[in-house]
Amino acid sequence: MDAISTVTIRRARREDVGMIVKMLADDPLGSARERIEEPLPASYFRAFERLEEDPNIQLMVAEGRDGVVIGCLQLCILPGLSSQGASRGLLEDVRVAAHCRSRGIGESLVQWAVAEARGRGCRLVELLTHHTRVDAQRFYKRLGFQPSHVGMTLRF
Amino acid sequence: MDAISTVTIRRARREDVGMIVKMLADDPLGSARERIEEPLPASYFRAFERLEEDPNIQLMVAEGRDGVVIGCLQLCILPGLSSQGASRGLLEDVRVAAHCRSRGIGESLVQWAVAEARGRGCRLVELLTHHTRVDAQRFYKRLGFQPSHVGMTLRF
Repeated sequence: MDAISTVTIRRARREDVGMIVKMLADDPLGSARERIEEPLPASYFRAFERLEEDPNIQLMVAEGRDGVVIGCLQLCILPGLSSQGASRGLLEDVRVAAHCRSRGIGESLVQWAVAEARGRGCRLVELLTHHTRVDAQRFYKRLGFQPSHVGMTLRF
Repeated sequence: MDAISTVTIRRARREDVGMIVKMLADDPLGSARERIEEPLPASYFRAFERLEEDPNIQLMVAEGRDGVVIGCLQLCILPGLSSQGASRGLLEDVRVAAHCRSRGIGESLVQWAVAEARGRGCRLVELLTHHTRVDAQRFYKRLGFQPSHVGMTLRF
């Protein structure tokens, strides 16, 4: 079992997009939504460019000692008036490669994001997790998150 | 009862900040989090400046025929890799002044945001609403939102 310290958390680069999309797709919900093809649909790379241009968004990856990407997380820092004008941190697309789970990699990613959000003046970090993801809810509760809200979605 | 058509939805301006904060505070959850003082704490205006600088965030107000601000909503367009690189729309801080509820103002604001998100390539609009806000949940369900997710928060 690898220790947490063997993982490097860094900004995602263009060459990581394929590995990130693979992790997003390797999941009962994600498999229906993604398109894993060779080459990868251009829409993923266009989205990566939009992410890179936004100073309030950081797409991060966890890289193992061998340089392979085994986890990802997107942190958005959202300014807003509520809570006396404190920004909010929003976590999205938190994934760990199936063969690397239960090693603390997800925890490292989330702890990085919480520290980053605090450092950028947030007083709240929030996320939506599908109601069927009970393991994820247990994981976030262990890290101090409360299931205080209902996450509502409209797809079209 | 005013018809929906008498409401104008427009970008918030600096002079609207006081009225928006009043609406955020006029609520069992918000009252503990906001500071209504004369003058309003500078942190609110600094947050407004950060909002204005972010091209992916729109803080909108609903203005009655008399020019008074009676509702607000913040829409964030969030690029991301998932769902084949489609951006997501996030709704935050949706409020209608207490004396103007049940007139379709909230619906006008949310419908504006959904149309804007679609127009900017989103395939999903999401939001978190506190589990105690059962009226809000009923309102969003009526507009087609599903309570598909758990909204988890970490405050510090």
